[in-house]
Amino acid sequence: MIKTKFASETSNTMTELVLPNDTNTLGNLMGGRLMHWMDIAAAISAMRHCNMPVVTASVDNVSFARPIKLGDILSIESKVTRSFNSSMEVYLKVWAENLHEQTRYLSNEAYLTFVALNESGKPTIVPELIPETIDEKEKFAGALRRRQLRLILGGKMKIDEAVELKALFIKD
Amino acid sequence: MIKTKFASETSNTMTELVLPNDTNTLGNLMGGRLMHWMDIAAAISAMRHCNMPVVTASVDNVSFARPIKLGDILSIESKVTRSFNSSMEVYLKVWAENLHEQTRYLSNEAYLTFVALNESGKPTIVPELIPETIDEKEKFAGALRRRQLRLILGGKMKIDEAVELKALFIKD
Amino acid sequence: MIKTKFASETSNTMTELVLPNDTNTLGNLMGGRLMHWMDIAAAISAMRHCNMPVVTASVDNVSFARPIKLGDILSIESKVTRSFNSSMEVYLKVWAENLHEQTRYLSNEAYLTFVALNESGKPTIVPELIPETIDEKEKFAGALRRRQLRLILGGKMKIDEAVELKALFIKD
Amino acid sequence: MIKTKFASETSNTMTELVLPNDTNTLGNLMGGRLMHWMDIAAAISAMRHCNMPVVTASVDNVSFARPIKLGDILSIESKVTRSFNSSMEVYLKVWAENLHEQTRYLSNEAYLTFVALNESGKPTIVPELIPETIDEKEKFAGALRRRQLRLILGGKMKIDEAVELKALFIKD
Amino acid sequence: MIKTKFASETSNTMTELVLPNDTNTLGNLMGGRLMHWMDIAAAISAMRHCNMPVVTASVDNVSFARPIKLGDILSIESKVTRSFNSSMEVYLKVWAENLHEQTRYLSNEAYLTFVALNESGKPTIVPELIPETIDEKEKFAGALRRRQLRLILGGKMKIDEAVELKALFIKD
Amino acid sequence: MIKTKFASETSNTMTELVLPNDTNTLGNLMGGRLMHWMDIAAAISAMRHCNMPVVTASVDNVSFARPIKLGDILSIESKVTRSFNSSMEVYLKVWAENLHEQTRYLSNEAYLTFVALNESGKPTIVPELIPETIDEKEKFAGALRRRQLRLILGGKMKIDEAVELKALFIKD
Repeated sequence: MIKTKFASETSNTMTELVLPNDTNTLGNLMGGRLMHWMDIAAAISAMRHCNMPVVTASVDNVSFARPIKLGDILSIESKVTRSFNSSMEVYLKVWAENLHEQTRYLSNEAYLTFVALNESGKPTIVPELIPETIDEKEKFAGALRRRQLRLILGGKMKIDEAVELKALFIKD
Repeated sequence: MIKTKFASETSNTMTELVLPNDTNTLGNLMGGRLMHWMDIAAAISAMRHCNMPVVTASVDNVSFARPIKLGDILSIESKVTRSFNSSMEVYLKVWAENLHEQTRYLSNEAYLTFVALNESGKPTIVPELIPETIDEKEKFAGALRRRQLRLILGGKMKIDEAVELKALFIKD
Repeated sequence: MIKTKFASETSNTMTELVLPNDTNTLGNLMGGRLMHWMDIAAAISAMRHCNMPVVTASVDNVSFARPIKLGDILSIESKVTRSFNSSMEVYLKVWAENLHEQTRYLSNEAYLTFVALNESGKPTIVPELIPETIDEKEKFAGALRRRQLRLILGGKMKIDEAVELKALFIKD
Repeated sequence: MIKTKFASETSNTMTELVLPNDTNTLGNLMGGRLMHWMDIAAAISAMRHCNMPVVTASVDNVSFARPIKLGDILSIESKVTRSFNSSMEVYLKVWAENLHEQTRYLSNEAYLTFVALNESGKPTIVPELIPETIDEKEKFAGALRRRQLRLILGGKMKIDEAVELKALFIKD
Repeated sequence: MIKTKFASETSNTMTELVLPNDTNTLGNLMGGRLMHWMDIAAAISAMRHCNMPVVTASVDNVSFARPIKLGDILSIESKVTRSFNSSMEVYLKVWAENLHEQTRYLSNEAYLTFVALNESGKPTIVPELIPETIDEKEKFAGALRRRQLRLILGGKMKIDEAVELKALFIKD
Repeated sequence: MIKTKFASETSNTMTELVLPNDTNTLGNLMGGRLMHWMDIAAAISAMRHCNMPVVTASVDNVSFARPIKLGDILSIESKVTRSFNSSMEVYLKVWAENLHEQTRYLSNEAYLTFVALNESGKPTIVPELIPETIDEKEKFAGALRRRQLRLILGGKMKIDEAVELKALFIKD
């Protein structure tokens, strides 16, 4: 098995066109439909990292700034930020584009985590991720704090144990 | 317009059967498909509160404990916890049930927020929510802290301003 | 195996939001899409009764009173009324709601029957259903007449044999 | 407007291939999915008759004989049997075919009724239907009895008024 | 195994109603959606010929004359034109109909080829096709030229070897 | 309006995961489903060029080499090659990847053409395309020959008028 992978090897771009059934009665993309696409896009990055099937373990806070409209084009860029034993954190950015009005803006960002499964469906160790660029290194470092926040929010860690997260609360 | 609503008036139950196209190659429900259903279920509760179209503003951290399988039945129970001017926070619980093995367990919980829109698509004031039961009152009180965490995570509030959230970090 | 079940144990509520692809060019929910949902909702009640996979055996006359519109919310309430060897009759009510106009009405009612299948796909005996409320007892009693009507309409019973059905024609 | 139409002018054939998402965990076509297709097929025959949009008014008793499997091919043959002011009764036959095993059998038959709507969504008078073959004439004649049965089952007609239906109970 | 089949035995008609999710923001049927239906329709004709599962091998040039609108009805008529060892060429015609405006026109024609697969997924010999009508005989003869054009366009045949195709360039 | 665009400005990558409903009974991606995705991917490139809605005008010969399996990942890379008044030719490559087996290969290539439409649905002039790289320049030059082949195959041009196409038959 491959022991390490570069962050850049897990990079993926998914493009989707907003069709009628993706929208509500106001012609706006439904948030849940976008999360469906985000999950598939991020899962592809996680699979590029571990070359195994994966299941979604968690989705961090996501907020949606502006309504995305029928006929808009979404580009979802995703990359693994760090791996932990059998799990991987994926960062993604959603760009919304209106080709008619020639506007393009960052709709939202998100962190999702996935667990790799072997053929009998059990969690399995994944390669270590090697960050290279400055941005990849920052996200690699921040992954510990985000993981502690997830564990606290999920009731699986006490505040006192979250050493890195405390650093976030003192200085971001 | 109705000035206030009881939390119980916004309660909704949605049931879904997991079909082939909702699953990955291991026969597990994809996380994004579940988020799609959670978004629709929660939006119905928000619409029961404000009687207007709504858009998803944010989804708080969601974690998925166990894989949900093809043929399982999901029950999504949702209720508005608190309203803030034009936005509403909805709490939901997802129950997964395997009728063949006669098992039923709490798959996950989540908080989503929605914004009410008027006919020209602008955010519009919504009724005040009145909690009645002990559980409704606790979730009503906690909504302030969760809102601060969302604002901090979204980069829209500084740590020092998050008075209620600090209380969470001192004593949950 | 469980020998008996109460009607109340088979109760189920399914909520659906009418989306663009569910509607025709007039923006009305297509009847066939509603029947698709009714079938899934009723199958869930039948599976709650027998804890086995089921197949639809028949759908009794269904009529649709008023058009249901894009953006409306449907609540389908279902419950098993009676079991016969390997088959179960399910009664359901479809409520249509327009949250904007704050209207809610009974769109239609229906009876569907399902057959329980074992792992090799053969019809299998199901628990006996115990009705408790007055309404459950009336539907339990009426199930015989409805079954005779189905058999006559399906060409599997002669009029003279349909003792209970005749009672319907004399006094409803 | 055209005053009359021949039954043969309303004839339609729709073919569908049973795909994974149309089936349950046993690989059988779900009854509700079939009803969805039956509704669209029958609506096309009704639209061929009236050249206007239509809505489903009712579906008569449908029973499903044998399970239809993943990969099977369905042929739905439909034809209008009679018109009544703004409504049309459509008869359809569903043939299921397994091309690998080279089997083909009549899966089920059904009668659906539709109402024609004008541009403001109001019921509108439709052409008179002219039956030509013996089979078309028999179905044309039987349409009255079936209509009475629908009205009785829908609680809109008393038994005593259903003159033609009584004939069915005396001699089919 | 059956050694030969008549072209007429492979004939198939598929009807589809254009629904919202099949259309772009102008309310026109998307070309790719139509090609999806064409592929399924043609595959059914190929399966009628060989009574085995098939995979699409190629699609010849397709052009779309006029936009097809939401609510229109498509009829896809397909028939096998010739078989070659394990492959079959299917010809299809797409008719678009607007029942409200009472217009019907030939939207497009196409040739698709399919390969028959046995149970281990390997290409398998198929029956010989016997053309009977003048039109079937012409399409049978033309199949050689179209096959050469496909091979040349796919880079698998040199121009000089395409004897029948040259005839096309001299006299069609 | 923008008068010219570089080919590189129209470049697009779309990634899709093959799900159960995209496959046939052998677990292979259906050709028509792939063509549906190819059409959307190419349309996005065309819209990037003209910033207007587009309709598919034609699809050139497409052939499928190897079956693509359930769970595989498709990357569709597309770019406009040349524009002609109101139409644009788009070239695309489909890469199929099996992340588990760590294989990736070129599944197929295709040329599609689109017509730009203004707000009243009429064909509208589009910017001129400027090729920059050697590959872009070759495809730009070849676009004339491919256009002549399309016109001949569509019966809209005589062989003698296809000057550039003849060159293809003499030396590619």
